[in-house]
Amino acid sequence: MASETHIDKEKCISLLTPIGDALYVIGGKWKLRVIAALHDGHKRFNEIQRAIDGISARVLSSELKELELNGFVMRIVHTKTPVVVEYEITDYARSLNDVLQSLADWGIMHRDKLKRER
Amino acid sequence: MASETHIDKEKCISLLTPIGDALYVIGGKWKLRVIAALHDGHKRFNEIQRAIDGISARVLSSELKELELNGFVMRIVHTKTPVVVEYEITDYARSLNDVLQSLADWGIMHRDKLKRER
Repeated sequence: MASETHIDKEKCISLLTPIGDALYVIGGKWKLRVIAALHDGHKRFNEIQRAIDGISARVLSSELKELELNGFVMRIVHTKTPVVVEYEITDYARSLNDVLQSLADWGIMHRDKLKRER
Repeated sequence: MASETHIDKEKCISLLTPIGDALYVIGGKWKLRVIAALHDGHKRFNEIQRAIDGISARVLSSELKELELNGFVMRIVHTKTPVVVEYEITDYARSLNDVLQSLADWGIMHRDKLKRER
């Protein structure tokens, strides 16, 4: 407890405000998962939907649109026959790499912990 | 499947599964914000509620209970008069430090970008 106060004094920087800012944009149930699926190399709508457990086509469609509006995703239409639509993450979405990696690392650690406790 | 071959070729490590695992536990609108507020040094219920913009007492109460059940938060009752209840993050919640820090860093970067674009 004493050490905690000490740490807080030392840092003087609140985590809460910038974390609130981040979650405002990339929070919610699906956004980081969609970005992770694209990161994993899935490009086609059906492929992305299959990769993300439990997402409906309607929700994926609206998440992709929102991510495109916010500059995280590019929708690429290949105008050959048949027309092929692919989704890719933008360079700006790649600024989330540390967030994705730390979440993935934590997810692996947490699953290992649960396994050990069983 | 073509997509599987694609992943095997590219990286062999999927971000999606461990990120799904992580978000299953600490996803949602409030959990990381509550942990960040405790991290910032807020301890009393009212203090935590004031720190987190927009959270109701009912929701904060249920989030704290769930975080306590999952081993992220300790509820400490000081049995002097008047009785004082404080909340603290556990050592296990501190395993989320990299996640919190990377989210906070990204939040700061994103806000700066929006400012520059205005």
